[in-house]
Amino acid sequence: MIELDNLRSAARRLEDVAHRTPVLTSRTLNEAAGAQVFLKAENLQRGGAFKIRGAYNKISQLTPEELSRGIAAFSSGNHAQAVALSARLVGTKATILMPEDAPPSKLDATRAYGSEVITYDRYTQNRTELGLALSAERGLTLVHPYDDPDIIAGQGTVALELLEEVPDLDVLLVPVGGGGLISGCSIAMSAVGRPGAVIVGVEPAAGDDTKQSLAAGHRVTIEVPRTIADGQQVETPGAITFEIVQRNVDQIDLVTDAEIVGAMAFLFERMKIVVEPSGACALSALLAGHLEEIADGKKVGVILSGGNIGIERFVGLLS
Amino acid sequence: MIELDNLRSAARRLEDVAHRTPVLTSRTLNEAAGAQVFLKAENLQRGGAFKIRGAYNKISQLTPEELSRGIAAFSSGNHAQAVALSARLVGTKATILMPEDAPPSKLDATRAYGSEVITYDRYTQNRTELGLALSAERGLTLVHPYDDPDIIAGQGTVALELLEEVPDLDVLLVPVGGGGLISGCSIAMSAVGRPGAVIVGVEPAAGDDTKQSLAAGHRVTIEVPRTIADGQQVETPGAITFEIVQRNVDQIDLVTDAEIVGAMAFLFERMKIVVEPSGACALSALLAGHLEEIADGKKVGVILSGGNIGIERFVGLLS
Repeated sequence: MIELDNLRSAARRLEDVAHRTPVLTSRTLNEAAGAQVFLKAENLQRGGAFKIRGAYNKISQLTPEELSRGIAAFSSGNHAQAVALSARLVGTKATILMPEDAPPSKLDATRAYGSEVITYDRYTQNRTELGLALSAERGLTLVHPYDDPDIIAGQGTVALELLEEVPDLDVLLVPVGGGGLISGCSIAMSAVGRPGAVIVGVEPAAGDDTKQSLAAGHRVTIEVPRTIADGQQVETPGAITFEIVQRNVDQIDLVTDAEIVGAMAFLFERMKIVVEPSGACALSALLAGHLEEIADGKKVGVILSGGNIGIERFVGLLS
Repeated sequence: MIELDNLRSAARRLEDVAHRTPVLTSRTLNEAAGAQVFLKAENLQRGGAFKIRGAYNKISQLTPEELSRGIAAFSSGNHAQAVALSARLVGTKATILMPEDAPPSKLDATRAYGSEVITYDRYTQNRTELGLALSAERGLTLVHPYDDPDIIAGQGTVALELLEEVPDLDVLLVPVGGGGLISGCSIAMSAVGRPGAVIVGVEPAAGDDTKQSLAAGHRVTIEVPRTIADGQQVETPGAITFEIVQRNVDQIDLVTDAEIVGAMAFLFERMKIVVEPSGACALSALLAGHLEEIADGKKVGVILSGGNIGIERFVGLLS
């Protein structure tokens, strides 16, 4: 059971490690969204995404013996960078499995933090199996990208910070990949948010494993989704995260890649910030008008989860 | 004489009008710059640039009679938007002279705030004369983009806010166009900054009118500079601003368009923010290594003055 106390402890561990990211507001955005919108800008987080929160919360609690053996992780990119950075901070070595078609900027950044990167084909190889095999073979501690209480507690500090600035949010929109971010944030909302506040997860339409799983009442596995939202190319929710999502999340909305690109362009031109596809996913649901019934005229928190996208890919997507 | 009190009054007027923009830090940036860098992100300001501070401070102090006649302004873009927005906020009408080759996003944004836009050729027509003629003819109050004590006091609130967060800055880097921003900020630094702190203005190499003027000991007029830094295509410093710059500014550094583009790319890829050429001008001096002697290992504040650039122009400049 992950509770508010776990999130508070994570927040203390992260104090000098993660940024307290700004909450951005804009009248232009409010007009476009028909709501009072508060953007939690985790694209401005250290390492370019919220992932450092969970990774450091986890890794900083490993035993000296575990740290001396080293750690392993698998990730489409942002968790990789966060583990690599956290490993450097605590003085251990990380070995990271990344899909060979991950954005080059993410591969490069992970290597730049001093980690070893091993690539795999995300459409034919199973990363969880590869990760477990690698860890067993080399005696490494596997740091899961989402299905771990310490990871979830770390990610929950995003909502904890947002709620400190805007305690009376009516709605919180969170992008959903494996479910670590939304699980942690939903624990914060339940504990210190407004009673009755609505939590909405947003998935790319091609990667609706969480929506399908909620409908089925159990975890459903889909094909690796083909979507520009590389941070959300997940086949099935985590076991721990899914249980929390079932309990705390009110609904899942689906967005198209084109809607995501629209939100990325809005964030660039109107908000002057760079947000990667998964990072713009939650806002795109609002801007595309999917949430009028619950969001109209309300105080809506939106998590922009990351900004790790190179100029070339950004241009390619938006042109 | 513009004093700290004038800046404090401006700050009060701006309280519910302008954003208190975040101060961004990054270890990657510190490593690249060889200094402890604090970015004051005025690209995230309302209207996309610091200009709202001066414009609103000025316009909100006009008499009801002046407001009923309406206001006029000339500007390459950001002051235009700021005047247009401020005019809407106080309920008056603005007529704005803008160069016909101003970035389309700036022309559109100004019109979107409900102002009338009149274009001119910046290479053959004198905007000050056109502005004065327009004001006289229509009985409008001309809101100068920089050479006005209320404008200068408003812009000074940028440094006032930065110093509240980082009181012991060793160096402050400010882009210089007409000199309103650096004048105001230098007043704040002199009044509440660390004694002996160094203030550096940064101009595009093609538009070195302030550097030339300081060397000559009087205001020098140059040809309209051809530079990508459209916010700094100024031929001569203001009369009021130049006197303050002479008194308070320690040195002027010059940067090339290529160095500015380099800083824009760094800000996009590493800091995840969108900054226009003039807005990246001050940082480019630091990243290009021009300021090693005064900045190495020091606490350096850098003002990112604006982010009003459309995706197309951004891509054109960076590719």
